[in-house]
Amino acid sequence: MSIPPRSESTSARTRPTNNATEITVDLGQRSYPICIESSATGRPDESGFAGRLRAALGDCTHAIVIQDAAIATSAGQQILDSLAGEDIRISEIEVASGETSKSTDRLAELWSELLDCGADRRSVVIAVGGGVIGDLAGFAAATFTRGLRFVQVPTTLLAMVDSSVGGKTGINLPGGKNMVGAFWQPHLVWIDTDFLATLPRREYLSGLAEVIKYGVIEDAPFFDYLETNIAAILEREPQTTRHAISRSCQSKARVVADDERETTGRRAILNYGHTFAHAIEATAGYGVMLHGEAVAIGMQMAASLGVDLGLCSDELLRRQTALIQAAGLPRSWAEADPAKMVPVMAHDKKVAHGKLRFVLPQEIGSVGLIADVPQEKVVAAIRSWSDR
Amino acid sequence: MSIPPRSESTSARTRPTNNATEITVDLGQRSYPICIESSATGRPDESGFAGRLRAALGDCTHAIVIQDAAIATSAGQQILDSLAGEDIRISEIEVASGETSKSTDRLAELWSELLDCGADRRSVVIAVGGGVIGDLAGFAAATFTRGLRFVQVPTTLLAMVDSSVGGKTGINLPGGKNMVGAFWQPHLVWIDTDFLATLPRREYLSGLAEVIKYGVIEDAPFFDYLETNIAAILEREPQTTRHAISRSCQSKARVVADDERETTGRRAILNYGHTFAHAIEATAGYGVMLHGEAVAIGMQMAASLGVDLGLCSDELLRRQTALIQAAGLPRSWAEADPAKMVPVMAHDKKVAHGKLRFVLPQEIGSVGLIADVPQEKVVAAIRSWSDR
Repeated sequence: MSIPPRSESTSARTRPTNNATEITVDLGQRSYPICIESSATGRPDESGFAGRLRAALGDCTHAIVIQDAAIATSAGQQILDSLAGEDIRISEIEVASGETSKSTDRLAELWSELLDCGADRRSVVIAVGGGVIGDLAGFAAATFTRGLRFVQVPTTLLAMVDSSVGGKTGINLPGGKNMVGAFWQPHLVWIDTDFLATLPRREYLSGLAEVIKYGVIEDAPFFDYLETNIAAILEREPQTTRHAISRSCQSKARVVADDERETTGRRAILNYGHTFAHAIEATAGYGVMLHGEAVAIGMQMAASLGVDLGLCSDELLRRQTALIQAAGLPRSWAEADPAKMVPVMAHDKKVAHGKLRFVLPQEIGSVGLIADVPQEKVVAAIRSWSDR
Repeated sequence: MSIPPRSESTSARTRPTNNATEITVDLGQRSYPICIESSATGRPDESGFAGRLRAALGDCTHAIVIQDAAIATSAGQQILDSLAGEDIRISEIEVASGETSKSTDRLAELWSELLDCGADRRSVVIAVGGGVIGDLAGFAAATFTRGLRFVQVPTTLLAMVDSSVGGKTGINLPGGKNMVGAFWQPHLVWIDTDFLATLPRREYLSGLAEVIKYGVIEDAPFFDYLETNIAAILEREPQTTRHAISRSCQSKARVVADDERETTGRRAILNYGHTFAHAIEATAGYGVMLHGEAVAIGMQMAASLGVDLGLCSDELLRRQTALIQAAGLPRSWAEADPAKMVPVMAHDKKVAHGKLRFVLPQEIGSVGLIADVPQEKVVAAIRSWSDR
């Protein structure tokens, strides 16, 4: 089974400026800009958040800021301050940090809060926080009155490079992660690297796993760049960090533009390492391991499986392992148990009627979608990163 | 404020056959057929339900039949029987009749039931029942794994001519009807007039209100047809009933094709009588009055408002009143209270930031969208159908 190559006609358009990058996600009428900036949220001119919001939305008279309760005093306040001078009625809703907020109960409560604050079809939801906030607020926006406009303000590295771009929103069911949701594209993604200043180191590193992923799946020169510049990125040096975020968002925007609703197969490449990672997260118990940590280990398992199947070289695995280690991410998990993980993988919602498929590397910058992998090879790949 | 006229390029395509009509809702890649038949569900050839399902879906190996618990022994069983010879795994989920099933609690339960029956992205949801079942099951289909294919099998006249066509799905919040949902087009709408045989007379009449609406809003010859043939329709004579359903579905399909997501304004014409009707239903208490009964009274109030504003003639109101009476529908409601109804109307989700707008008749077959109607005129229109 093959993955459709990047199409010629669609691609992310990039406009670098002084200390900012603007990327356009090309989705026809649903196209939207990703602004990647530093220290720019409060700027009073058109380059600040309020100016970008005006440009992206045209009219906006009621905004509902849905924010992570834990960051209400930092990023959330910066966003609120930036809107203070605008002729916009502001409603504020706080959501507790953590995966448990992506529940049917919290969603139902959020719908009621939207009703209570007088949201109507002209209102705009602004999600300020990590992936949990973006996924939950985005799904509420997608469904309240059958669709409100929506702006993503990711405040974690993981959300900046992954969940805030591409339009996937949703919640968990007790029996499955992201089992319910909608494709709902934002009108604007606003990324200010200043928001990363207060992000705990472990969460920052977790985001780097997805950054490394883009290098492996479709951008070999970016993988080289990461090998050379990982130290500056770990220090959160603004220019290097912005570049890493931009290249990641460009990768994601290209893939999403080619396959908005996961129908052509192209979007599957974003799941490199994720089939293993979801099984790791589920068997570890949600929240024990950070998503990016599970993805790092999952990519190691996927690369080992690729080597075992003769799809890629040992050298690829060696380079990936070295970069993951240099980024301070785990490359193995002592408790990885194939007997627990394989059944979870068989229930992954991307499984077509029980057929296990894996995104596996061919060379740095290129992956393939492989069906019908023998189960003993999967077990061996899990084992190879559980006992060292 | 004006409503965009019917566009030249989009229209419903109709292919009448022997005792059936097939209408295509033109929505590009999301186009789908509406089959209007009599005694056809169990036919083993391509004209039966199973054959149409195969044609509409291509592949289908797992179908989840979500049906009204009250009709599980009639229409639901016919659908299940028709699929018995197919190589399709069938799951069955029953939902209690009535508006209370369109709740966040029942939705969350339904999502869990879909997970429990092993639904994945290749599964198909078949909703068998009235509008409540279609709206709830359709919204679950729209959101489970971010979207399952969906088939509508309406079993009430109201669902056949209105809710099953057009892709609106959703649930209620304690504070508002249809406040949460998604636009999610079905792959097939299957209408068999046999399902109407057991429909209680009051519910059947309720559906006729929406049928009459299509005549007023955009199909004057159909209004004439209804005036002439109302007796046969009341007797549920198959050919006349099929014709009335077909013309109604054609109207709806034309409007939906012009304005799938309620963005151009054209789709607003479907709300003729509905701003009043929603306020009638809300102040009467949901379930006290049937939707079509409230729509009949709402159309009377809208027509009176139109006469009062000089938009249409007394003659239009007279003809509409006569047809509504001939159809056995209420034309007034003694308890209609402007003091209660007007505040509800101001909270209608189609209100743009508090501005009251009404769809009002100009002549039979043509309506306009009127903004900024003086409140005293609205009050007078409500009063004119509360005290006679």
